[in-house]
Amino acid sequence: MIRKRNLETCFSPALYEPERHEGSIVVIIDILRATSAICTAFENGSESIIPVATVSEAKAYKEKGYLVAAERDGYVLDFADFGNSPFNFTPEKVSGRTIVYSTTNGTGIIKMAASAGYIVIGSFLNISALTGWISEQEKNVVLFCAGWKNRFNLEDTICAGAVAERLLESSLYSTICDSTLAAMDLWTLAKSDIPGYIEKAAQRSRLRDKKLDECIQFCLTADYTRKVPIVKNGILVSMVS
Amino acid sequence: MIRKRNLETCFSPALYEPERHEGSIVVIIDILRATSAICTAFENGSESIIPVATVSEAKAYKEKGYLVAAERDGYVLDFADFGNSPFNFTPEKVSGRTIVYSTTNGTGIIKMAASAGYIVIGSFLNISALTGWISEQEKNVVLFCAGWKNRFNLEDTICAGAVAERLLESSLYSTICDSTLAAMDLWTLAKSDIPGYIEKAAQRSRLRDKKLDECIQFCLTADYTRKVPIVKNGILVSMVS
Repeated sequence: MIRKRNLETCFSPALYEPERHEGSIVVIIDILRATSAICTAFENGSESIIPVATVSEAKAYKEKGYLVAAERDGYVLDFADFGNSPFNFTPEKVSGRTIVYSTTNGTGIIKMAASAGYIVIGSFLNISALTGWISEQEKNVVLFCAGWKNRFNLEDTICAGAVAERLLESSLYSTICDSTLAAMDLWTLAKSDIPGYIEKAAQRSRLRDKKLDECIQFCLTADYTRKVPIVKNGILVSMVS
Repeated sequence: MIRKRNLETCFSPALYEPERHEGSIVVIIDILRATSAICTAFENGSESIIPVATVSEAKAYKEKGYLVAAERDGYVLDFADFGNSPFNFTPEKVSGRTIVYSTTNGTGIIKMAASAGYIVIGSFLNISALTGWISEQEKNVVLFCAGWKNRFNLEDTICAGAVAERLLESSLYSTICDSTLAAMDLWTLAKSDIPGYIEKAAQRSRLRDKKLDECIQFCLTADYTRKVPIVKNGILVSMVS
Protein backbone atom coordinates (compact mmCIF):
# COMPACT_ATOMS: atom_id res chain seq x y z
CA MET A 1 0.00 0.00 0.00
CA ILE A 2 1.32 3.41 -0.94
CA ARG A 3 1.38 5.76 2.00
CA LYS A 4 -0.78 8.76 1.27
CA ARG A 5 0.55 12.22 1.83
CA ASN A 6 -0.86 13.93 4.88
CA LEU A 7 -2.91 17.11 4.53
CA GLU A 8 -3.47 19.47 7.46
CA THR A 9 -4.84 22.95 7.96
CA CYS A 10 -3.77 25.53 10.53
CA PHE A 11 -6.26 28.33 11.26
CA SER A 12 -3.93 30.83 12.90
CA PRO A 13 -0.26 31.55 13.57
CA ALA A 14 -1.07 30.85 17.24
CA LEU A 15 -1.90 27.26 16.28
CA TYR A 16 1.14 26.61 14.07
CA GLU A 17 3.43 23.82 15.26
CA PRO A 18 6.70 24.20 13.30
CA GLU A 19 8.22 20.95 14.59
CA ARG A 20 5.33 18.96 13.10
CA HIS A 21 5.78 20.43 9.63
CA GLU A 22 9.52 20.13 9.04
CA GLY A 23 10.03 19.16 5.43
CA SER A 24 6.35 19.66 4.50
CA ILE A 25 4.96 22.04 1.93
CA VAL A 26 3.52 25.02 3.82
CA VAL A 27 0.96 27.02 1.85
CA ILE A 28 0.52 30.53 3.22
CA ILE A 29 -3.03 31.80 2.75
CA ASP A 30 -3.90 35.44 3.51
CA ILE A 31 -6.26 36.26 0.68
CA LEU A 32 -7.49 39.68 1.90
CA ARG A 33 -5.06 40.88 0.79
CA ALA A 34 -1.41 39.84 1.12
CA THR A 35 -1.22 36.55 -0.75
CA SER A 36 -3.54 37.82 -3.48
CA ALA A 37 -1.28 40.85 -3.90
CA ILE A 38 1.85 38.68 -4.07
CA CYS A 39 0.32 36.50 -6.80
CA THR A 40 -0.69 39.63 -8.70
CA ALA A 41 2.80 41.12 -8.41
CA PHE A 42 4.38 38.06 -10.01
CA GLU A 43 1.74 37.88 -12.72
CA ASN A 44 2.61 41.47 -13.53
CA GLY A 45 6.30 40.74 -13.87
CA SER A 46 7.81 41.34 -10.46
CA GLU A 47 11.28 39.76 -10.24
CA SER A 48 11.23 38.92 -6.55
CA ILE A 49 9.65 39.95 -3.25
CA ILE A 50 11.55 40.31 -0.01
CA PRO A 51 9.13 39.62 2.85
CA VAL A 52 9.90 41.49 6.05
CA ALA A 53 8.02 41.15 9.32
CA THR A 54 8.65 44.51 10.96
CA VAL A 55 8.06 48.12 10.01
CA SER A 56 11.63 49.07 10.87
CA GLU A 57 13.04 46.49 8.44
CA ALA A 58 10.76 47.80 5.69
CA LYS A 59 11.90 51.35 6.40
CA ALA A 60 15.56 50.36 6.28
CA TYR A 61 15.05 48.83 2.83
CA LYS A 62 13.25 51.97 1.64
CA GLU A 63 16.26 54.02 2.69
CA LYS A 64 18.42 51.71 0.55
CA GLY A 65 16.26 52.55 -2.49
CA TYR A 66 13.96 49.54 -2.71
CA LEU A 67 10.34 49.66 -3.85
CA VAL A 68 8.42 49.07 -0.59
CA ALA A 69 4.88 47.78 -0.04
CA ALA A 70 3.95 48.08 3.61
CA GLU A 71 0.71 48.33 5.55
CA ARG A 72 -0.61 47.86 9.03
CA ASP A 73 -4.33 47.21 9.58
CA GLY A 74 -4.94 48.00 5.94
CA TYR A 75 -3.32 51.43 5.92
CA VAL A 76 -0.27 52.25 3.82
CA LEU A 77 2.67 53.23 5.99
CA ASP A 78 3.79 56.77 5.28
CA PHE A 79 7.27 55.90 4.00
CA ALA A 80 6.03 53.11 1.70
CA ASP A 81 5.47 53.27 -2.07
CA PHE A 82 2.15 51.48 -1.74
CA GLY A 83 0.06 49.19 0.48
CA ASN A 84 -1.28 45.74 -0.18
CA SER A 85 -4.18 46.13 -2.54
CA PRO A 86 -3.42 43.82 -5.48
CA PHE A 87 -4.41 46.75 -7.72
CA ASN A 88 -1.26 48.58 -6.63
CA PHE A 89 0.98 45.95 -8.15
CA THR A 90 0.58 47.03 -11.76
CA PRO A 91 3.01 46.03 -14.52
CA GLU A 92 4.10 49.69 -14.78
CA LYS A 93 5.17 49.69 -11.14
CA VAL A 94 6.47 46.19 -10.55
CA SER A 95 7.68 44.67 -13.82
CA GLY A 96 11.28 43.57 -13.43
CA ARG A 97 11.45 45.00 -9.91
CA THR A 98 12.27 43.57 -6.51
CA ILE A 99 9.66 44.60 -3.94
CA VAL A 100 10.08 44.69 -0.18
CA TYR A 101 6.78 43.68 1.41
CA SER A 102 5.54 43.89 4.97
CA THR A 103 1.92 43.32 6.04
CA THR A 104 -0.09 42.89 9.23
CA ASN A 105 -0.27 39.11 9.11
CA GLY A 106 1.10 37.58 5.96
CA THR A 107 4.80 38.22 5.94
CA GLY A 108 5.31 37.41 9.63
CA ILE A 109 4.10 33.87 9.15
CA ILE A 110 6.45 33.26 6.23
CA LYS A 111 9.19 33.63 8.84
CA MET A 112 7.42 31.27 11.25
CA ALA A 113 7.34 28.51 8.65
CA ALA A 114 11.10 28.56 8.04
CA SER A 115 11.58 24.86 8.92
CA ALA A 116 9.24 23.71 6.14
CA GLY A 117 10.46 21.89 3.04
CA TYR A 118 8.83 24.46 0.78
CA ILE A 119 6.91 27.64 1.57
CA VAL A 120 4.54 28.68 -1.20
CA ILE A 121 1.91 31.38 -1.54
CA GLY A 122 -1.72 30.45 -2.03
CA SER A 123 -4.84 32.35 -3.01
CA PHE A 124 -7.84 31.85 -5.24
CA LEU A 125 -5.89 33.75 -7.90
CA ASN A 126 -3.42 30.88 -8.40
CA ILE A 127 -5.40 27.91 -7.06
CA SER A 128 -5.10 25.58 -10.07
CA ALA A 129 -1.42 26.27 -10.61
CA LEU A 130 -0.81 25.89 -6.87
CA THR A 131 -2.60 22.57 -6.47
CA GLY A 132 -1.01 21.29 -9.69
CA TRP A 133 2.47 22.09 -8.39
CA ILE A 134 1.76 20.67 -4.93
CA SER A 135 0.57 17.38 -6.43
CA GLU A 136 3.85 16.97 -8.27
CA GLN A 137 5.80 17.01 -4.99
CA GLU A 138 5.87 13.92 -2.79
CA LYS A 139 5.36 15.80 0.41
CA ASN A 140 2.92 16.33 3.23
CA VAL A 141 1.04 19.60 3.04
CA VAL A 142 -0.13 22.14 5.60
CA LEU A 143 -2.49 24.95 4.64
CA PHE A 144 -1.46 27.81 6.91
CA CYS A 145 -4.17 30.46 7.19
CA ALA A 146 -2.81 33.82 8.29
CA GLY A 147 -6.02 34.73 10.09
CA TRP A 148 -6.23 38.17 11.63
CA LYS A 149 -4.14 39.07 14.67
CA ASN A 150 -3.89 35.40 15.58
CA ARG A 151 -7.63 34.85 15.19
CA PHE A 152 -9.48 32.48 12.90
CA ASN A 153 -10.98 34.10 9.82
CA LEU A 154 -13.56 32.92 7.33
CA GLU A 155 -11.96 34.06 4.08
CA ASP A 156 -8.65 32.24 4.47
CA THR A 157 -10.50 29.19 5.79
CA ILE A 158 -12.73 28.84 2.73
CA CYS A 159 -9.71 29.23 0.47
CA ALA A 160 -7.96 26.47 2.44
CA GLY A 161 -11.11 24.39 2.04
CA ALA A 162 -11.05 24.93 -1.72
CA VAL A 163 -7.39 23.88 -1.92
CA ALA A 164 -8.04 20.85 0.32
CA GLU A 165 -10.99 19.77 -1.80
CA ARG A 166 -8.85 19.77 -4.93
CA LEU A 167 -5.98 17.88 -3.31
CA LEU A 168 -8.26 15.25 -1.76
CA GLU A 169 -9.99 14.69 -5.10
CA SER A 170 -6.83 12.89 -6.13
CA SER A 171 -6.05 9.72 -4.21
CA LEU A 172 -2.61 11.05 -3.26
CA TYR A 173 -3.67 12.75 -0.04
CA SER A 174 -5.54 11.89 3.11
CA THR A 175 -6.45 13.90 6.19
CA ILE A 176 -7.40 13.19 9.78
CA CYS A 177 -7.32 16.87 10.63
CA ASP A 178 -10.56 18.37 11.95
CA SER A 179 -9.52 21.83 10.75
CA THR A 180 -9.25 20.56 7.18
CA LEU A 181 -12.65 18.87 7.40
CA ALA A 182 -14.22 22.05 8.80
CA ALA A 183 -12.58 24.20 6.10
CA MET A 184 -13.95 21.93 3.38
CA ASP A 185 -17.44 22.02 4.90
CA LEU A 186 -17.36 25.81 5.03
CA TRP A 187 -16.06 25.93 1.46
CA THR A 188 -18.98 23.70 0.41
CA LEU A 189 -21.35 26.28 1.90
CA ALA A 190 -19.49 29.19 0.32
CA LYS A 191 -18.62 28.06 -3.17
CA SER A 192 -21.85 28.76 -5.00
CA ASP A 193 -21.63 32.44 -3.98
CA ILE A 194 -18.24 33.28 -2.49
CA PRO A 195 -18.73 37.07 -2.29
CA GLY A 196 -22.14 36.48 -0.67
CA TYR A 197 -20.65 34.11 1.89
CA ILE A 198 -17.78 36.49 2.64
CA GLU A 199 -20.26 39.33 3.34
CA LYS A 200 -20.47 38.28 6.99
CA ALA A 201 -16.72 37.99 7.55
CA ALA A 202 -15.19 40.49 9.96
CA GLN A 203 -12.42 41.41 7.51
CA ARG A 204 -15.06 42.17 4.87
CA SER A 205 -16.53 44.80 7.22
CA ARG A 206 -13.12 46.11 8.21
CA LEU A 207 -12.12 46.67 4.59
CA ARG A 208 -15.49 48.25 3.78
CA ASP A 209 -15.21 50.63 6.75
CA LYS A 210 -11.76 51.70 5.58
CA LYS A 211 -12.89 51.92 1.94
CA LEU A 212 -10.33 49.29 1.05
CA ASP A 213 -12.77 46.75 -0.32
CA GLU A 214 -12.60 47.55 -4.02
CA CYS A 215 -10.35 44.54 -4.63
CA ILE A 216 -12.39 41.85 -2.86
CA GLN A 217 -14.21 40.57 -5.92
CA PHE A 218 -10.87 40.29 -7.69
CA CYS A 219 -9.28 38.41 -4.74
CA LEU A 220 -12.05 35.80 -4.95
CA THR A 221 -11.41 35.10 -8.65
CA ALA A 222 -9.99 31.68 -9.47
CA ASP A 223 -6.99 31.30 -11.74
CA TYR A 224 -5.97 34.83 -12.63
CA THR A 225 -2.40 33.54 -12.83
CA ARG A 226 -0.34 30.36 -13.28
CA LYS A 227 2.40 31.73 -11.05
CA VAL A 228 3.25 29.93 -7.82
CA PRO A 229 5.33 32.17 -5.56
CA ILE A 230 7.84 30.22 -3.49
CA VAL A 231 10.33 31.23 -0.81
CA LYS A 232 13.98 30.58 -1.76
CA ASN A 233 16.66 31.71 0.68
CA GLY A 234 14.16 33.94 2.42
CA ILE A 235 13.05 35.67 -0.81
CA LEU A 236 9.87 35.09 -2.80
CA VAL A 237 10.38 34.14 -6.42
CA SER A 238 7.97 32.76 -8.94
CA MET A 239 7.55 29.31 -10.43
CA VAL A 240 5.18 28.62 -13.28
CA SER A 241 3.14 25.46 -12.86
CA MET B 1 -30.40 51.92 21.44
CA ILE B 2 -29.63 49.15 23.86
CA ARG B 3 -26.13 47.84 23.42
CA LYS B 4 -26.22 44.17 22.56
CA ARG B 5 -24.08 41.73 24.44
CA ASN B 6 -21.11 40.49 22.50
CA LEU B 7 -20.77 36.80 21.65
CA GLU B 8 -17.44 35.25 20.68
CA THR B 9 -16.04 31.78 20.19
CA CYS B 10 -12.52 30.56 20.85
CA PHE B 11 -11.50 27.33 19.12
CA SER B 12 -8.48 26.41 21.22
CA PRO B 13 -6.65 27.33 24.44
CA ALA B 14 -3.85 28.60 22.15
CA LEU B 15 -6.27 31.23 20.84
CA TYR B 16 -7.67 32.36 24.17
CA GLU B 17 -7.04 36.02 25.04
CA PRO B 18 -7.77 36.39 28.78
CA GLU B 19 -7.44 40.18 28.78
CA ARG B 20 -10.26 40.48 26.25
CA HIS B 21 -12.68 38.44 28.35
CA GLU B 22 -12.34 39.95 31.79
CA GLY B 23 -15.78 40.07 33.35
CA SER B 24 -17.41 37.99 30.57
CA ILE B 25 -19.16 34.69 30.92
CA VAL B 26 -16.76 31.99 29.71
CA VAL B 27 -18.43 28.74 28.70
CA ILE B 28 -16.00 25.82 28.72
CA ILE B 29 -16.90 23.22 26.08
CA ASP B 30 -15.10 19.86 25.99
CA ILE B 31 -17.93 17.50 25.16
CA LEU B 32 -15.90 14.31 24.51
CA ARG B 33 -15.78 13.86 27.42
CA ALA B 34 -14.91 16.25 30.26
CA THR B 35 -17.75 18.75 30.26
CA SER B 36 -20.33 16.05 29.54
CA ALA B 37 -18.97 14.08 32.50
CA ILE B 38 -19.10 17.13 34.79
CA CYS B 39 -22.74 17.80 33.87
CA THR B 40 -23.54 14.13 34.53
CA ALA B 41 -21.80 14.17 37.90
CA PHE B 42 -23.95 17.09 39.09
CA GLU B 43 -27.12 15.55 37.71
CA ASN B 44 -26.26 12.46 39.75
CA GLY B 45 -25.88 14.40 42.97
CA SER B 46 -22.22 15.32 43.19
CA GLU B 47 -21.69 18.08 45.76
CA SER B 48 -18.74 19.79 44.10
CA ILE B 49 -15.84 19.14 41.75
CA ILE B 50 -12.33 20.39 42.30
CA PRO B 51 -10.67 20.86 38.90
CA VAL B 52 -6.93 20.31 38.90
CA ALA B 53 -4.65 20.77 35.92
CA THR B 54 -1.76 18.45 36.77
CA VAL B 55 -1.42 14.76 37.53
CA SER B 56 0.65 15.47 40.64
CA GLU B 57 -2.10 17.66 42.11
CA ALA B 58 -4.67 14.93 41.46
CA LYS B 59 -2.41 12.38 43.14
CA ALA B 60 -1.92 14.59 46.20
CA TYR B 61 -5.70 14.86 46.62
CA LYS B 62 -6.05 11.07 46.31
CA GLU B 63 -3.57 10.65 49.12
CA LYS B 64 -5.76 12.95 51.24
CA GLY B 65 -8.73 10.61 50.69
CA TYR B 66 -10.63 12.38 47.91
CA LEU B 67 -12.55 10.62 45.15
CA VAL B 68 -10.39 11.28 42.07
CA ALA B 69 -11.32 11.25 38.37
CA ALA B 70 -8.21 11.57 36.25
CA GLU B 71 -7.25 10.65 32.72
CA ARG B 72 -4.68 11.47 30.11
CA ASP B 73 -5.42 10.81 26.43
CA GLY B 74 -8.53 8.92 27.45
CA TYR B 75 -6.84 6.48 29.82
CA VAL B 76 -7.58 6.35 33.53
CA LEU B 77 -4.51 7.15 35.59
CA ASP B 78 -3.52 4.21 37.78
CA PHE B 79 -4.06 5.96 41.11
CA ALA B 80 -7.47 7.38 40.15
CA ASP B 81 -10.91 6.05 41.11
CA PHE B 82 -12.17 6.49 37.55
CA GLY B 83 -11.60 8.29 34.26
CA ASN B 84 -13.81 10.70 32.38
CA SER B 85 -16.55 8.66 30.83
CA PRO B 86 -19.83 10.23 31.99
CA PHE B 87 -20.99 6.65 32.72
CA ASN B 88 -18.51 6.47 35.60
CA PHE B 89 -20.24 9.28 37.46
CA THR B 90 -23.15 7.19 38.74
CA PRO B 91 -25.35 8.27 41.67
CA GLU B 92 -23.91 5.37 43.72
CA LYS B 93 -20.41 6.72 43.29
CA VAL B 94 -20.83 10.48 43.30
CA SER B 95 -23.99 11.44 45.21
CA GLY B 96 -23.11 13.88 47.96
CA ARG B 97 -19.40 13.60 47.18
CA THR B 98 -16.70 16.06 46.25
CA ILE B 99 -14.72 14.84 43.22
CA VAL B 100 -11.23 15.91 42.22
CA TYR B 101 -11.07 15.97 38.43
CA SER B 102 -8.15 16.26 36.06
CA THR B 103 -8.37 15.70 32.29
CA THR B 104 -6.21 16.14 29.20
CA ASN B 105 -7.77 19.40 28.09
CA GLY B 106 -10.78 20.45 30.09
CA THR B 107 -9.58 21.28 33.55
CA GLY B 108 -6.48 23.13 32.41
CA ILE B 109 -8.55 25.70 30.55
CA ILE B 110 -10.75 26.38 33.58
CA LYS B 111 -7.58 27.75 35.15
CA MET B 112 -6.78 29.82 32.03
CA ALA B 113 -10.15 31.56 32.22
CA ALA B 114 -9.67 32.76 35.80
CA SER B 115 -10.14 36.46 34.93
CA ALA B 116 -13.66 35.89 33.58
CA GLY B 117 -16.78 37.16 35.34
CA TYR B 118 -18.26 33.68 35.43
CA ILE B 119 -16.87 30.33 34.26
CA VAL B 120 -19.57 27.80 33.46
CA ILE B 121 -19.56 24.32 31.97
CA GLY B 122 -21.31 23.66 28.68
CA SER B 123 -22.30 20.54 26.78
CA PHE B 124 -25.24 19.29 24.81
CA LEU B 125 -26.40 17.63 28.04
CA ASN B 126 -27.25 20.96 29.66
CA ILE B 127 -27.69 23.21 26.63
CA SER B 128 -31.16 24.61 27.40
CA ALA B 129 -30.42 25.24 31.06
CA LEU B 130 -27.07 26.79 30.09
CA THR B 131 -28.43 29.18 27.49
CA GLY B 132 -31.34 30.06 29.76
CA TRP B 133 -28.98 30.98 32.59
CA ILE B 134 -26.62 32.90 30.28
CA SER B 135 -29.50 34.99 28.92
CA GLU B 136 -30.43 36.10 32.43
CA GLN B 137 -26.97 37.66 32.94
CA GLU B 138 -26.16 41.01 31.38
CA LYS B 139 -22.73 39.98 30.20
CA ASN B 140 -20.69 39.34 27.12
CA VAL B 141 -20.11 35.67 26.37
CA VAL B 142 -17.21 33.65 25.04
CA LEU B 143 -17.64 30.02 24.05
CA PHE B 144 -14.29 28.45 24.86
CA CYS B 145 -13.75 25.16 23.04
CA ALA B 146 -11.17 22.96 24.73
CA GLY B 147 -10.07 21.41 21.44
CA TRP B 148 -7.47 18.68 21.59
CA LYS B 149 -3.89 19.47 22.56
CA ASN B 150 -4.38 23.07 21.47
CA ARG B 151 -5.92 22.05 18.14
CA PHE B 152 -9.33 22.87 16.72
CA ASN B 153 -11.85 20.05 16.97
CA LEU B 154 -15.19 19.50 15.31
CA GLU B 155 -17.23 18.21 18.23
CA ASP B 156 -16.67 21.18 20.55
CA THR B 157 -17.15 23.53 17.62
CA ILE B 158 -20.58 22.23 16.69
CA CYS B 159 -21.65 22.40 20.32
CA ALA B 160 -20.47 26.02 20.41
CA GLY B 161 -22.44 26.60 17.21
CA ALA B 162 -25.56 25.17 18.82
CA VAL B 163 -25.17 27.41 21.88
CA ALA B 164 -24.48 30.44 19.67
CA GLU B 165 -27.54 29.76 17.54
CA ARG B 166 -29.77 29.73 20.61
CA LEU B 167 -28.27 32.91 22.06
CA LEU B 168 -28.47 34.81 18.77
CA GLU B 169 -32.11 33.79 18.33
CA SER B 170 -32.86 36.31 21.04
CA SER B 171 -32.13 39.91 20.20
CA LEU B 172 -29.87 40.26 23.24
CA TYR B 173 -26.66 39.20 21.53
CA SER B 174 -24.66 40.08 18.46
CA THR B 175 -21.43 38.76 17.05
CA ILE B 176 -18.76 39.98 14.66
CA CYS B 177 -16.61 36.96 15.38
CA ASP B 178 -15.74 34.75 12.40
CA SER B 179 -15.23 31.76 14.69
CA THR B 180 -18.81 32.05 15.94
CA LEU B 181 -20.14 32.34 12.38
CA ALA B 182 -18.13 29.29 11.30
CA ALA B 183 -19.28 27.29 14.33
CA MET B 184 -22.91 28.09 13.54
CA ASP B 185 -22.46 27.10 9.89
CA LEU B 186 -20.89 23.78 10.91
CA TRP B 187 -23.69 23.24 13.45
CA THR B 188 -26.22 23.84 10.66
CA LEU B 189 -24.56 21.06 8.66
CA ALA B 190 -24.39 18.75 11.67
CA LYS B 191 -27.67 19.16 13.46
CA SER B 192 -29.89 16.85 11.44
CA ASP B 193 -27.55 13.94 12.23
CA ILE B 194 -25.01 14.84 14.91
CA PRO B 195 -23.55 11.34 15.39
CA GLY B 196 -23.22 11.00 11.60
CA TYR B 197 -21.45 14.35 11.35
CA ILE B 198 -19.14 13.51 14.24
CA GLU B 199 -18.11 10.24 12.53
CA LYS B 200 -15.32 12.04 10.69
CA ALA B 201 -13.93 13.85 13.73
CA ALA B 202 -10.46 12.83 14.86
CA GLN B 203 -11.57 12.40 18.48
CA ARG B 204 -14.32 10.04 17.31
CA SER B 205 -11.64 7.77 15.81
CA ARG B 206 -9.37 8.14 18.82
CA LEU B 207 -12.11 7.05 21.22
CA ARG B 208 -13.12 4.17 18.94
CA ASP B 209 -9.53 2.94 18.69
CA LYS B 210 -9.26 2.99 22.49
CA LYS B 211 -12.70 1.40 22.91
CA LEU B 212 -13.81 4.47 24.83
CA ASP B 213 -16.62 5.44 22.49
CA GLU B 214 -19.58 3.85 24.24
CA CYS B 215 -20.63 7.21 25.69
CA ILE B 216 -20.61 9.31 22.52
CA GLN B 217 -24.27 8.96 21.69
CA PHE B 218 -25.08 10.01 25.26
CA CYS B 219 -22.75 13.05 25.07
CA LEU B 220 -24.63 14.27 21.99
CA THR B 221 -28.00 14.18 23.77
CA ALA B 222 -29.64 17.52 24.44
CA ASP B 223 -31.04 18.38 27.86
CA TYR B 224 -30.22 15.39 30.01
CA THR B 225 -29.94 17.83 32.94
CA ARG B 226 -30.99 21.29 34.10
CA LYS B 227 -27.75 21.70 36.05
CA VAL B 228 -25.33 24.47 35.12
CA PRO B 229 -21.93 23.84 36.72
CA ILE B 230 -20.17 27.06 37.67
CA VAL B 231 -16.75 27.80 39.13
CA LYS B 232 -16.87 29.49 42.56
CA ASN B 233 -13.58 30.13 44.32
CA GLY B 234 -11.85 27.66 42.04
CA ILE B 235 -14.36 24.87 42.72
CA LEU B 236 -17.19 23.68 40.49
CA VAL B 237 -20.63 23.75 42.06
CA SER B 238 -24.02 23.42 40.49
CA MET B 239 -26.75 25.94 39.78
CA VAL B 240 -30.17 24.90 38.56
CA SER B 241 -31.52 27.03 35.75
